[in-house]
This record gives sequence, C-alpha cells and structure tokens, in this order.
Amino acid sequence: MTDNAASPTGLTLLGLGAMGTALASAWLDSGHDLTVWNRTPTRAEPLAARGATAAASVASAVAANDLVVLCLLDDASVRSTLDGVDLTGKDLVNLTTGTPGGARALAEWAAARGARFVDGGIMAVPQMIGVPGSGAYVFYSGSAAAFEAHRDVLAVPAGTTYVGEDPGFAALHDVALLSAMTGMFAGVTHAFALTRKENIAPHELAELLSGWLTAMSGYARGIAEHLASGDYTTGVTSNLAMMAEGNATLLATAEEQGVSPELLLPFMRLMRQLVDDGRGDEDTTGVVDLLLGSRV
Amino acid sequence: MTDNAASPTGLTLLGLGAMGTALASAWLDSGHDLTVWNRTPTRAEPLAARGATAAASVASAVAANDLVVLCLLDDASVRSTLDGVDLTGKDLVNLTTGTPGGARALAEWAAARGARFVDGGIMAVPQMIGVPGSGAYVFYSGSAAAFEAHRDVLAVPAGTTYVGEDPGFAALHDVALLSAMTGMFAGVTHAFALTRKENIAPHELAELLSGWLTAMSGYARGIAEHLASGDYTTGVTSNLAMMAEGNATLLATAEEQGVSPELLLPFMRLMRQLVDDGRGDEDTTGVVDLLLGSRV
Repeated sequence: MTDNAASPTGLTLLGLGAMGTALASAWLDSGHDLTVWNRTPTRAEPLAARGATAAASVASAVAANDLVVLCLLDDASVRSTLDGVDLTGKDLVNLTTGTPGGARALAEWAAARGARFVDGGIMAVPQMIGVPGSGAYVFYSGSAAAFEAHRDVLAVPAGTTYVGEDPGFAALHDVALLSAMTGMFAGVTHAFALTRKENIAPHELAELLSGWLTAMSGYARGIAEHLASGDYTTGVTSNLAMMAEGNATLLATAEEQGVSPELLLPFMRLMRQLVDDGRGDEDTTGVVDLLLGSRV
Repeated sequence: MTDNAASPTGLTLLGLGAMGTALASAWLDSGHDLTVWNRTPTRAEPLAARGATAAASVASAVAANDLVVLCLLDDASVRSTLDGVDLTGKDLVNLTTGTPGGARALAEWAAARGARFVDGGIMAVPQMIGVPGSGAYVFYSGSAAAFEAHRDVLAVPAGTTYVGEDPGFAALHDVALLSAMTGMFAGVTHAFALTRKENIAPHELAELLSGWLTAMSGYARGIAEHLASGDYTTGVTSNLAMMAEGNATLLATAEEQGVSPELLLPFMRLMRQLVDDGRGDEDTTGVVDLLLGSRV
C-alpha cells in the first residue's frame, strides 16, 4: 500500500486501539478512502487487507488528507505523536479521551500550528460503533466550520451532537453523562446487594430496576427547572424533609440486610445538611451548590 | 355519618396523611364503600363530604370491613393505633413505610391476633395515585390468599405487583428501587455541578441526561446475569480496568470544574479495589459482594 492523494471524502485516522479499529471499520464499510497509522504497525494490517492505506509514518498519514481523526491514549500522546508534523490547513478531530481543560489546551496548540480543532466525546463502547440503531453518538465541540465541513463523514460511525464552539464542551458533556451514569451504577449495585441473600431472582430485580430508573430519569428536568429559576422549593411534590425521612428507612434496611451504606451516604449527608439549614421545603437542587462550595 | 355494615367491596382506611388522602380519593372516585379514620378527625371531613364514612373510633372503623388498609406514620404507630382492637378474621394491608424486618415482625404480630397480613411498598408520590397512566404501582407481599381476595380493590389507586409470601419482600423491593434511584439522583446532581458555571442550558443537559440514563438502565440486566452465573468477566465489553482509567478523567474534570467528587468517590474506590485485586477483566458486579463483606 502507498499513501494516496488527498480526496474530498478521504480521511486519516491515527490510533488503532479497540475504539480506533471500530471507527476504521465503519469508515471502510461505507466506502470511505481511509488512511491509518498506529504506533504498532501490525494493528493496521487487517484494515489494510480491507482497503485502508497503512501509512508508513505519521507525517505521511497526516499529509494524505485534510481531515485527521485522532484516537490515541491521552492528550500527551496526541502532542508527542504529532510533534514536528506539519499541520498547516489540517482539520484535527480529537476523539482521544480527556478533560475539558485538556481539550481547550489542545485547541490552542493546534491553532498555533495552523490547524482547525474539533474535540469529540464518544458515548458508546466500540461494539456499538457503526451499528445502526445502537444509539451510539459522539459529542463534538470546537470549530463549527471544521465540524460542518466533515459532518457527513463523522456521522458514519455514530450519531453527531455538536455542543458549541468551546472546545472543552464535548469532553464536559461526555464526563457529565458518564458521571451521572456512575452514580446510577452505584445505586443499582447497592440494590443488588440488598437482595443478594434473599430468594429474589436477579433478573427479575433487574427488570424492575430498569423500568423504575427509566421512569425516574426525568428527575434531571426538575433539577434543570430549579437551577434555571433559582427557586428550589417543590410545591406539592416530595421535598427534602420527606426524602430525609425516607433515607432513614433506606439506611435501616441496609443495616438489616448487612449491606454497607457507603455508596449512598455522601448524598444523604448533603441532603441532611440542607434540611438542617432550614431548607426542608426544597428538593435536592441545593446539593449542586454544595458540591461547588465544599471541595473535598 | 354512622358506621356501615361490612360489604364485599367495602374497605377501611386508617391514616389520612397526604398518601392516605390520595388513596381515599381514588377509592371514593371509583364508587367503593370507604370507611376512614384519622387521629386528627378534621382530616376526614372533606372525604366524608364526598361519601366516605368517618368512623368515630379505630375499633368501629376496623369493625366496618374485612379489608383494613393502614397508611400510618411508622410501624410503632400501627401497633399503637390497633392496640386492643379485635382483628380476628381481618385482612390487614399495611402501606405504612418501613423496613423488611419491620414488616416481618408486623406479620407475626397480626397472625397472633387472628388477622391475615399483606405489606405494601408504594412506588409513587401522592400526586400519581389514582391517575391512569401515571405509572404508579405498589409492591405487595405476604398472604397470597388475602392479596388475591382484595386484588381488584387494591388495583384501584395504583398498579399491583405481588412479589411473594415473605412479608418483608414488598418493603425490600421498594427500598431496593429507591436506593438505586438515590444513586442516580446523586450522579445527576454531580453532572449539573460540573456544568453549573458554564454557558450550558440546564434543560438541554437534562434532556441529554434523561436519554443517556434511560439507555444505560439496562446495566442492571448485565449485573443480574453475572450474579446468576457467578462469572463476572466481561468478554469484549468495557471492563473494570478500562472503567478505572475513565474514572481518572471523571475526577480530573471534577477538579477542573471545582466540583467536590464526594458523591462518586466511594464507588470508584471499590472499583479500584477490585482492579488492585487482579480483577480488572471483570465488570462492577464484584462491588455487590464488597458491600456485603465490608460493613461500615
């Protein structure tokens, strides 16, 4: 295989880990002209057999196309991989996992080298990439012009959700959703621990949990309304004072079932703090402010 | 109003807090012959004006019907309210919030007084009671015969989900789902804190969170499969080693955004403990066992 000339629908992908390989497969399957590079060249071989161009160097890979997608280990490997490579006029789309601050710094670094920069946060595991109906999508932020120029190509492996010019916003949205998911996973884990020693089929509890959590996922809308209005009181629905009473039952049940409450306690403590501050008629929105005012 | 004689579709309700009042309204709206009692009698007056019988005493309220529904403050108030009242041949349905152990103790207490006992856990706020399509339902457990005898009446204010003869199972299912929800709420709260100081509209984040958490609620099914099989390894999907790497990005982002990580740290610590124990190829199922083995 030799490097090919730049083509309107061609793109270059640097990094062939599990995610990079899944992305590459999706672009190859849809007939895109794909140039790949990986630090360990053997990972490019199966893709080359399917029609990809395996570049001999980073420089030749980058030279091959205007659109250069990065799916590397971390921000430091983005800088080291592209060290000394001419990026003038290139559009970098960075799908490497990182923080919002890291993405903003990379955007400045790219601009100084004459490249446009788009950051992405992938909301999927590799198995979902290129699978219609999988629900996989990618948050993008940064250069709107670069994103628009390549939107169709970027839409091949997964859905696209552009969240603004701030290059940090893709990572921030990504991390926000993953953080919320981490909390949900913790709660589900506690639920299974409560029933672990009882004659309750795990798959039956799983169905109940899945339905309940889906029904309660609208909680986020209530918090959003309160944050937007600045009025955290609940009116007729369940308020912090009632929830704090309910928490006592949750903790007493954990005690009965021999389950450590450590996954639930931090949130309950902050709810209690608000009640103790005389805010029992509010909902949990005030905990958002506590997290911002009480850094550990 | 005077006490009426027992009727096949009649029932007695003790306790007219917000939830008890919502239940009473639903039964009255559907034409059931309802007798009510509340420690503070004035709360019964609006219901009496709508056709309920306001009993002058607990004893006369209980005597009026075979089915006696309890919606009181706590287990202790159930015992004190019914102290000295003849319960022979009665079917008690206890919707008072409590623990599984508390329900089991009440079941024994009821049996010793010649009553059948069903415990219930209400998965709804009062505003959802009696509203078709609200999704409100009640877990029931305990005497299957008593539940079957009154299933149609019990189905009036909310859906019914019977989860077994063990009188503690309704409360256990209730608490398991509420505990999982608490974790999800904590995660959502952290997500809003991350974006609080950025130019990101809360309602837009809410829609993204709601969709993502709904998509990820199937996580419970994966945990259930692993608990059932005893094999916690993940094969091709995201494993603990990868998740621990991702957690580092979540924590670094919280630091950048000035958000305390306290709501996420306990789960992350247990995930790390499993990785350090050489179980990086598993998923998070092992945390269930850690919670049962490491009581705080």
